[in-house]
Amino acid sequence: MKTPSSSSLLALLEAPLDRVSAEPLQRQLCRRIKDAIVAGDLPAGLRLPATRALAQELVISRNTASMAYEHLLAEGYVVADRQGTVVAELRTHAHTRTNASSPPSPRLASRLASLRPSPATTADCTALRPGVPALTQFPQAHWRLALAYAARSATPNTLNYGDPLGELALRAAIASHLAVTRGVHCTAEQVVVTEGAQEALNLCVRLITNPGDTAWVEDPGYRGGKSALQAGDLRVLPKRVDAEGLYFTATDWRTEQPRLIYTTPSHQYPLGTVMSVARRLALMAAAQAHGAWIIEDDYDSEFRHSGEPIRAMQGLVSDAPVLYVGTFSKTMFPSLRLGFLVLPERMQPLLQQPLRELLRGGHSHEQLAMARFMEAGHFVRHLARMRRLYRERQQALRSALGQHLGVPHSIEGGRSGLHLCVRFSANYADVAVVEAAQRYGMAPQALSGFALEPQTQDNGLVLGYGNTPVETMGPLVKKLGKILKGLA
Amino acid sequence: MKTPSSSSLLALLEAPLDRVSAEPLQRQLCRRIKDAIVAGDLPAGLRLPATRALAQELVISRNTASMAYEHLLAEGYVVADRQGTVVAELRTHAHTRTNASSPPSPRLASRLASLRPSPATTADCTALRPGVPALTQFPQAHWRLALAYAARSATPNTLNYGDPLGELALRAAIASHLAVTRGVHCTAEQVVVTEGAQEALNLCVRLITNPGDTAWVEDPGYRGGKSALQAGDLRVLPKRVDAEGLYFTATDWRTEQPRLIYTTPSHQYPLGTVMSVARRLALMAAAQAHGAWIIEDDYDSEFRHSGEPIRAMQGLVSDAPVLYVGTFSKTMFPSLRLGFLVLPERMQPLLQQPLRELLRGGHSHEQLAMARFMEAGHFVRHLARMRRLYRERQQALRSALGQHLGVPHSIEGGRSGLHLCVRFSANYADVAVVEAAQRYGMAPQALSGFALEPQTQDNGLVLGYGNTPVETMGPLVKKLGKILKGLA
Repeated sequence: MKTPSSSSLLALLEAPLDRVSAEPLQRQLCRRIKDAIVAGDLPAGLRLPATRALAQELVISRNTASMAYEHLLAEGYVVADRQGTVVAELRTHAHTRTNASSPPSPRLASRLASLRPSPATTADCTALRPGVPALTQFPQAHWRLALAYAARSATPNTLNYGDPLGELALRAAIASHLAVTRGVHCTAEQVVVTEGAQEALNLCVRLITNPGDTAWVEDPGYRGGKSALQAGDLRVLPKRVDAEGLYFTATDWRTEQPRLIYTTPSHQYPLGTVMSVARRLALMAAAQAHGAWIIEDDYDSEFRHSGEPIRAMQGLVSDAPVLYVGTFSKTMFPSLRLGFLVLPERMQPLLQQPLRELLRGGHSHEQLAMARFMEAGHFVRHLARMRRLYRERQQALRSALGQHLGVPHSIEGGRSGLHLCVRFSANYADVAVVEAAQRYGMAPQALSGFALEPQTQDNGLVLGYGNTPVETMGPLVKKLGKILKGLA
Repeated sequence: MKTPSSSSLLALLEAPLDRVSAEPLQRQLCRRIKDAIVAGDLPAGLRLPATRALAQELVISRNTASMAYEHLLAEGYVVADRQGTVVAELRTHAHTRTNASSPPSPRLASRLASLRPSPATTADCTALRPGVPALTQFPQAHWRLALAYAARSATPNTLNYGDPLGELALRAAIASHLAVTRGVHCTAEQVVVTEGAQEALNLCVRLITNPGDTAWVEDPGYRGGKSALQAGDLRVLPKRVDAEGLYFTATDWRTEQPRLIYTTPSHQYPLGTVMSVARRLALMAAAQAHGAWIIEDDYDSEFRHSGEPIRAMQGLVSDAPVLYVGTFSKTMFPSLRLGFLVLPERMQPLLQQPLRELLRGGHSHEQLAMARFMEAGHFVRHLARMRRLYRERQQALRSALGQHLGVPHSIEGGRSGLHLCVRFSANYADVAVVEAAQRYGMAPQALSGFALEPQTQDNGLVLGYGNTPVETMGPLVKKLGKILKGLA
């Protein structure tokens, strides 16, 4: 072992230790020696002065010097031999040379990066944004009371890892709410509380499929659904949507053999079509016959504006091959990040163990507050108020479109939910309209952006009315009309 | 089209509508007709009575009857022709025949189901459980104030989808805390707030790797790390841990070509080894040379019990090929579900778009409360209190082991964190000890359960002292001693 002079250590420390610093002397000493070792100023094999000599030289206590050496030893910066303390052999070249690690180029990251920027990146635009509920109308006072109630009733155990599948009180409240309002058949045990609908979709993919399996999505359809399937390395095939909903033929089943089908039957996103009961039954029958599973994403069906509420597919027949997905993002507010997945009864026992490995539970505070909010009746009252409000807002949007859009168009959807879909000629490119609208603080979405395989008729706007007040509809649509006129 | 007599509809409805039910007549009528159609009692092609006739027969208003038919039409249960209303052709066999959908058998679910039940399933046992902080010592009052502060300062916009990468106030608080306590070099922009460490690990896998890539894990090592890698369909290779941490040779790099390395350098889980700085630098240099990335899981390094805090690998050299992962589960409480990922500076711009596709933001309320708790100094004060407490608890556990375990053993780890690792002869099978201990309400973990490729020396117990009071240590370890004696 080389034994260069240890004077270099003392030279290094010539700049005196800072005796008024909040950083203790021992820590300062350690830090400076480490930096010198990593920088190569104290080469491997260098023998360090004995602690007594170092202490005298630096006018520090012997104990401080010893503790510093002990720490350097523990971290492996120095090694001890019978004569004392020696700088360890480190591969210090790591910090000097250019980092050769390749940038990440996984299929997923590049696939996702190639998507058009998602609407989340245009956070300043809020008017007419689809999927956002009436944020100013949310009963914050009642919610704060529910949060405070949950905080007061928290025990030390509430702080611990909770049930990975969610707080049972909330799972029970969800099960009974879904039975009443959506006709879903399930027990609390079948309900899994998730991080919004997105985690529910990811779970379906991970639990049901293997990479390379085929999945069907509605085209045009919900981006988040597609992302979840693509992230699972599935072969994602687009299916067109007709007046009765997702369209398929017997041949499709034989040749494409889907394992998973993603659909929004109560209110197709973005077209707003309601899947007919004939199509629902046919889809479930075919899925059963071919060993496939259906994800029923029931994202905004609580806001029904005309006719009776339409029962969920899940409850239409017994033992339906359906994973039912829902969210509180529209019924409460998006940043709550609470969604849920209803497992098929038959699948539930099989998936207990995998789910407990994949999920960690938690957010007990908000989950218990949500259960309280539901049990106290605030949730259904809020839904009823919002249903009336959204009906008015939709009506105002329809009138404004009729009066001010100024180009031939057709309006689709609107039997439920928070948005309308407006189609117009591809002579007015929807992407250009959306770009121009953003400059006026509006965030409609381009219908063409929802298509996997865009067709010329997929041109138009998806207009959200949930968070846009009645009195602003006229002026906003006038601006859209002006933009369209400018593109003619 | 067949036109069977419509008397069957009236027969079906002979049981009168319930006029005192909370369910409106129109909804009752719809429901009963739908059920009859789905059950096949009203066959396809059946012509329904005219609304006037139906209204008279059932003594309901004509409007109620019309609305019911309109709803049935909208859902596709019936079709309209020039003469009136006819039951639609449905594939009603879906509900009658046995469901042929195969149960799910994806690789992931079966792999996860084959794992031994995770400790989360033994929720009643709490004594000596690793990884749980002192739940009764958490300053609930201060936390409630921070939550209330966040609730009061919530605007309607706080309810909206937040920044997918997390609230900027929290990301900034994390970045400056990590700089001071862990020597991590990063800006707030590099910090991504996640659902605990587990989501951070999942993100690393999804952002950095492709299915089939090779990953290294420490063996024995953290189950959650292995799960995340396996869920990404990686080829997971175990690496042994020696006195300096994760052990590898130059040949390993050439023949195995890992893309991702999962490590816990500050306090190896479960062995408690501190990775030497030589090993750290060598690992980073090799990763840079071979285009690999390191996940540094720094799960409990805030609780340092002897010597100086050990700087994170991430800050040891500039431009380190490291994704730094941390969690508030140990420093705050598990059900908070807040973790974070620090992206390498160079990678951050590339990953903005994929991350915005994968994450939805939200939990703004807790994130803003956490930022407040940190800014007000409650967090560092709590950490300092807990550091003292855990030091006492560890000391009590060590004494108790010396006095009461009664079999030859060695204690590893303990320089930081919330657990000790105790090895003893494989003559006392650790799995049997753990099973017996659970009957006494204790939840130690079997060292052999952390191994991918178990070796005979991987036999012993991982004992958590975070949530176990000093005065109970003696009696608990006495019981363990008794169990061991019984197995001899």
